[in-house]
Amino acid sequence: MTAARTIGIGLCGLGTVGQGVWKHFGRMRPELESRLGARIVLRRAAVRNPSRARGVSVPPSKLTGDAMAVATDPAIQIVCELIGGTGIAREVTLAALARGKIVVSANKALICAHGAEIFAAARRHGGHFLFEASVAGGIPLIKAVREGLVANRFPRIYGILNGTCNYILTQMRERGREFAEVLADAQKLGYAEADPSFDIDGIDAAHKLAILAALAFGRPVAFDAVYVEGIRRVSALDIAFATELGYRIKLLGIASHTEAGIETRVHPCMVPHSAPIARVDGVFNAVVAEGDFVGRVMLEGRGAGAGPTASAVVADLIDLARNRWTPVWGAAADALSGAPSVPMSAHFGPYYIRLMVVDRPGVIADVTAALRDHGISLESMLQRGRSPGEAVPVVLVTHETKESAMREAVARISSLDTVMEEPTLIRIEAG
Amino acid sequence: MTAARTIGIGLCGLGTVGQGVWKHFGRMRPELESRLGARIVLRRAAVRNPSRARGVSVPPSKLTGDAMAVATDPAIQIVCELIGGTGIAREVTLAALARGKIVVSANKALICAHGAEIFAAARRHGGHFLFEASVAGGIPLIKAVREGLVANRFPRIYGILNGTCNYILTQMRERGREFAEVLADAQKLGYAEADPSFDIDGIDAAHKLAILAALAFGRPVAFDAVYVEGIRRVSALDIAFATELGYRIKLLGIASHTEAGIETRVHPCMVPHSAPIARVDGVFNAVVAEGDFVGRVMLEGRGAGAGPTASAVVADLIDLARNRWTPVWGAAADALSGAPSVPMSAHFGPYYIRLMVVDRPGVIADVTAALRDHGISLESMLQRGRSPGEAVPVVLVTHETKESAMREAVARISSLDTVMEEPTLIRIEAG
Repeated sequence: MTAARTIGIGLCGLGTVGQGVWKHFGRMRPELESRLGARIVLRRAAVRNPSRARGVSVPPSKLTGDAMAVATDPAIQIVCELIGGTGIAREVTLAALARGKIVVSANKALICAHGAEIFAAARRHGGHFLFEASVAGGIPLIKAVREGLVANRFPRIYGILNGTCNYILTQMRERGREFAEVLADAQKLGYAEADPSFDIDGIDAAHKLAILAALAFGRPVAFDAVYVEGIRRVSALDIAFATELGYRIKLLGIASHTEAGIETRVHPCMVPHSAPIARVDGVFNAVVAEGDFVGRVMLEGRGAGAGPTASAVVADLIDLARNRWTPVWGAAADALSGAPSVPMSAHFGPYYIRLMVVDRPGVIADVTAALRDHGISLESMLQRGRSPGEAVPVVLVTHETKESAMREAVARISSLDTVMEEPTLIRIEAG
Repeated sequence: MTAARTIGIGLCGLGTVGQGVWKHFGRMRPELESRLGARIVLRRAAVRNPSRARGVSVPPSKLTGDAMAVATDPAIQIVCELIGGTGIAREVTLAALARGKIVVSANKALICAHGAEIFAAARRHGGHFLFEASVAGGIPLIKAVREGLVANRFPRIYGILNGTCNYILTQMRERGREFAEVLADAQKLGYAEADPSFDIDGIDAAHKLAILAALAFGRPVAFDAVYVEGIRRVSALDIAFATELGYRIKLLGIASHTEAGIETRVHPCMVPHSAPIARVDGVFNAVVAEGDFVGRVMLEGRGAGAGPTASAVVADLIDLARNRWTPVWGAAADALSGAPSVPMSAHFGPYYIRLMVVDRPGVIADVTAALRDHGISLESMLQRGRSPGEAVPVVLVTHETKESAMREAVARISSLDTVMEEPTLIRIEAG
């Protein structure tokens, strides 16, 4: 490495994250250059509307409306793709990789939709594609799994991967409020999008989990294999019952590797309140990696926002500038695991079921008969409040059982005419 | 990288960690070799007594009593120094580095005593010295600070760096027992050494903190600048008062960087019970890095033991095998920070003081006058139990004040003839 080496960087997208990266470089360039022993030059940034004002001052000569011009600029060796989505972001990425450039991205949706194509393009042309910012924002999680914990096999890796959902669930618990009210507040505060479905329906967490599972198990990304259920149906009542039973409700992404194969699922979980992950509140993300050598490691931090994401993007840039790289999934392409995906119907675990039933004799007998007929054994039952002839909540906690049996039992239970609403089913997860 | 490349590894020391590394390679070699695209050969292991039986089966032909023979073997490119201590470990390390080899070590004491000499030797001969296992065991902390979070400046980085102390403090709180009883149990269970002073007097944590501060602030290791106080004087009474005041007592290592310079200290702290670090219990370690971009990141895991340490050593080996390396303190040698060390007397913060005083009128007036005369203002005071003429505990919590003023005030307070024991002083730390 000589002092004369210059690294040209181009940004595609100058939204919150792009501005964070730009600002970071402006402020830390001397320190970064001395750490790297190389000159860093931010050559150009592509934006949708070059004349719009922004939170960072970028000389107009460095702004362009043409992302492809940045991706193909011969003076740029590293392209940061911060546009998002799977349209122009994919084109820009492939164009840069086709020229042997390096692409740094925070775009989890792109990796899930076009990962195979992108990684193949990087390999073919001798470029690289880095994506530390795509999972758990500022937490250096991908580096930890792929490098720091590389010696381990992971029977299970799971985490809180969406800060919006964790914020909503935390507020619901702390304030005893309903989902819709808390969501509305979160939207006002900017913690949730105007169209929040991507977050609250679990899609964002599923994107991240698909990438995390690929990293942990050394296999290609399999987004379609992820079972996804969001938090819309979690009610204040369920959160109160969870507390009473010694649990917290968290939206977890869980990847586990058993003899049957790889199970990946995103859904609300009851976790014991003493589990470290149960105490991760607000917008924070956390991932627990259970390594066979290292034991339980938990990494906690901010999963979104300009600062944390820029921190991850810059870490990738510095790895690249130092010629430090790792095979995409921690393994060479021909050494990827071929373990099959296990469908959700084969999931095995304990369940929480909350019913609203008419308060009259014989109801519980019908419900428990349905469970018995599907081979499901009960661990406990809770009924709160008496109100003869009216709907009252009844909570059942089962021992470990198979998801398919549970669904059949719940279908039968929900068809009982004493059961007033669709039953709420929340899986219980060991912490 | 060709399939024919062979990496020869030698082990100096085959205790718990050495056996963990050996076992790991035996079990995971095929997977590691396919990940690396290289052959890995464990050439030799040096032990004190080659004829003694061990938990791993090592062919007798691979055992030697001569650590130096391993360090200088031309067929060995990577030497794992797992002997410990600063005598033969230093000689072996320098001999290997003088031959341009790579040394992987878990030896924090060696780094603190001879770091400058070792890193200079590595530089001079083109070798490397890696030490992920030296701080916080299996938590990939050094990699996180030096690589994953490299984009950040850290105003403060702190953590629970000694599992033995954390286990003892956790047991004292959960069982309401005294230090000496819990220590004796911990020794029986193997969580504390027969001579526990290295752990419980804070030396081990101070070694780790000195390394952590060097990493976080990009400066040479300055072990002598670390203020150290252990947990011997923490009593069940103080733990009960901490709980009452909304705190947990933890032995923390804290490194902070202010305009005045770098402050490094290891001592029992009161941390708010809602702080993430307060909830890290038992033998677990955890480090909180407060980065200016990323915000608060916490990494939690096992800080000691064969599995976690082997996990870290193997991660270093794989980094090396992949030609992935980072300047020792994250910066080139000529770019190290020259920030001065701030003495403990200049520390500024709130304090908890617990006195045993004779229960009679006027005592509190004398105590509070001493605080007032040193410019120290009180936040709260607690007195529990009445027992006229006998010793009763009184707890004072101060606002932020300077350590030197606090010490003078405490000296005066302890000279009062109504004060029966040396006052207990515990610093309060924001979580």
